[in-house]
Amino acid sequence: MPMQKGFDVDFDPETLNYDAQGLIPAIAQDATTGEVLMMAWMNAEAVTETLRTGRVTYWSRSRRKLWRKGETSGHVQELVDFRVDCDRDCLLLRVRQTGPACHTNRRSCFYTAIRDGAEVEIMEPMA
Amino acid sequence: MPMQKGFDVDFDPETLNYDAQGLIPAIAQDATTGEVLMMAWMNAEAVTETLRTGRVTYWSRSRRKLWRKGETSGHVQELVDFRVDCDRDCLLLRVRQTGPACHTNRRSCFYTAIRDGAEVEIMEPMA
Repeated sequence: MPMQKGFDVDFDPETLNYDAQGLIPAIAQDATTGEVLMMAWMNAEAVTETLRTGRVTYWSRSRRKLWRKGETSGHVQELVDFRVDCDRDCLLLRVRQTGPACHTNRRSCFYTAIRDGAEVEIMEPMA
Repeated sequence: MPMQKGFDVDFDPETLNYDAQGLIPAIAQDATTGEVLMMAWMNAEAVTETLRTGRVTYWSRSRRKLWRKGETSGHVQELVDFRVDCDRDCLLLRVRQTGPACHTNRRSCFYTAIRDGAEVEIMEPMA
C-alpha cells in the first residue's frame, strides 16, 4: 500500500550524509517486482518533499532544481517504502512506477548489459 | 549462471562516465531474489577487475584502494550480470552474494526504513 501522504514529515533529512554538493544517491526499485528502475540524486529538500507528498522528487543536477519525477511525462513514482543504508549515505526507494522510469521510454534505465565484452540491449522501449 | 571468468576483458571501462573523483556508483542486487544489497563505488580499474575475475571489486573511498569484496570476510559477490544505465554513470551488478553484504552482518545495507516519521529496523543481523 502506498505510504500515506504527509505521514513522514517529522523525519529530519539533516540526519543523512550528503556529499560535498549536498546530494545523496537514491535508488528506485519497483516495490512489486523488485526491478531496479533508476538511480538519481536528492538533496535535503527533495527528501522532505518526497516524504511529505508520497511522490518521489529528485534533485536535477543538470537543471539545478527539484525534479518532481513524472511532472511533465506523467511517469510518476509513488513512494511505497523509504530506506536508508548503514552509512546513511544512500537511499533505497521502493516505488510504484507509472509507465517507464527511463527517459528512453524503457521500464528501467539499466537496459544495457555487458556480455562477452560487448554491450547488449536487454529491454525494449515500452509501446 | 555466473559469468565465465575472464570473459569480458575486452570491455573498455573508459566508455563509462565517472565523477570528478573518477568514480561511478555501483548497485549490487541479489540475482535470485532481486533484493538490493548495497551501493558502493568503482573506478575504471575496479570495473576491469570485476569483469576480469567475475568477483565484484569496488574502490574503497576511505582506504583509497581497491576493495575486493569479501577478501577478508569471505562474503564475496560473484558477478552474474553487469549492467550500465542510460547515462552510463551508474552500474547495476546482479550478483550471487555469499553471507551478509553489510558490514553490520545483515544481508542488505538497507535495513532501516522511515515509517511514520521514525526509523525502524526491518532486518536482523545474520546468525
